Amino acid sequence: MSDLQTIPARRGKAVPLKRGEAIKIVNTHGHQVVDFWSFVAGHLTEFSGMEQCRATWLKLCPEVGDHLYSNHRRPLMTLEEDTSPGRHDSVMAPCDNERYGLLGCNGYHDNCKDNMHAALFELGYSVPFTPGSLNLFMNIPWQPDGSLSFDPPLSKPGDYVVWRAEIDCIAVMSCCPQDILDINNRNTVEAHYEVLTQ
Amino acid sequence: MSDLQTIPARRGKAVPLKRGEAIKIVNTHGHQVVDFWSFVAGHLTEFSGMEQCRATWLKLCPEVGDHLYSNHRRPLMTLEEDTSPGRHDSVMAPCDNERYGLLGCNGYHDNCKDNMHAALFELGYSVPFTPGSLNLFMNIPWQPDGSLSFDPPLSKPGDYVVWRAEIDCIAVMSCCPQDILDINNRNTVEAHYEVLTQ
Repeated sequence: MSDLQTIPARRGKAVPLKRGEAIKIVNTHGHQVVDFWSFVAGHLTEFSGMEQCRATWLKLCPEVGDHLYSNHRRPLMTLEEDTSPGRHDSVMAPCDNERYGLLGCNGYHDNCKDNMHAALFELGYSVPFTPGSLNLFMNIPWQPDGSLSFDPPLSKPGDYVVWRAEIDCIAVMSCCPQDILDINNRNTVEAHYEVLTQ
Repeated sequence: MSDLQTIPARRGKAVPLKRGEAIKIVNTHGHQVVDFWSFVAGHLTEFSGMEQCRATWLKLCPEVGDHLYSNHRRPLMTLEEDTSPGRHDSVMAPCDNERYGLLGCNGYHDNCKDNMHAALFELGYSVPFTPGSLNLFMNIPWQPDGSLSFDPPLSKPGDYVVWRAEIDCIAVMSCCPQDILDINNRNTVEAHYEVLTQ
């Protein structure tokens, strides 16, 4: 009984989840990064905090069984399944229009920051800040000297993750429109999601 | 003509800087982590953004010559000198009271988050959010598998960094009161700073 919904290419979606429900996020074409956030329902100043996650994970990247922690250190969600090679990124900011300016773009460029705000706004919500994102399927390897690079994706078509809500929350996803660096193979496409009940 | 000021043990300080001025932050005893932030003067919703810094640095940790970038991708400061081994941390959240609860503390524990807010408040400022901090002299090594650990400091007494302001800003520092993990050798002490003119 699949009920796959589309996250359009270069756009975002926000989805309310009740505690116990889960969201399956599918990398349909295999090379699309999906920026991901979670906000506590009714209390949007509490949200997924990457720097808080890393302090408890004791690693740069989550694995199955790990929680997504809030900026108040509460577990918001649990990573229940991950069929990808497990390379997700917690250290890079969601892209924004200023970023594309620095990369040489003139004029407006679609970006994950604006997608996040637009997706929340579709549900009637507005927040005056942009939390760091967990960048699903984004391949940012780290080297022994600490250097980082924006590399092509390691995931394959149909790879997915499942995040189970530990509290009523709003999941926000953005199909990253980055078409200058290699993280989406310079081919930005749609992804899909499905809400799973318990 | 030294004019060293004290950042008291387990407390914070906020210092306004004019463009062109610099702040020298001295690890007087060699084993004290100093959490560090910068806010744009008169526009406090723009502040040092670790996830934006890493995207431009292309590394986990800044080196001399690197800028401290804002959440709007603007250079706020420049790292002009660093006599330490260069191990600073950009991935861990500033400690907060909730963090100490998770580490087993009962009751209130001094923390860098509250120190940041108290330091700003001494200058008459209040912000309803806590940006990620650049944790000066904090030794969080990363491994090939992405694992992280809170290790004893590598710095030595008198090590210092100098950050030069690229724009009028407010520098905020907190002598980290972490006395459960090893990052301060379980001996939380004062540090010092000095404002340098051009």
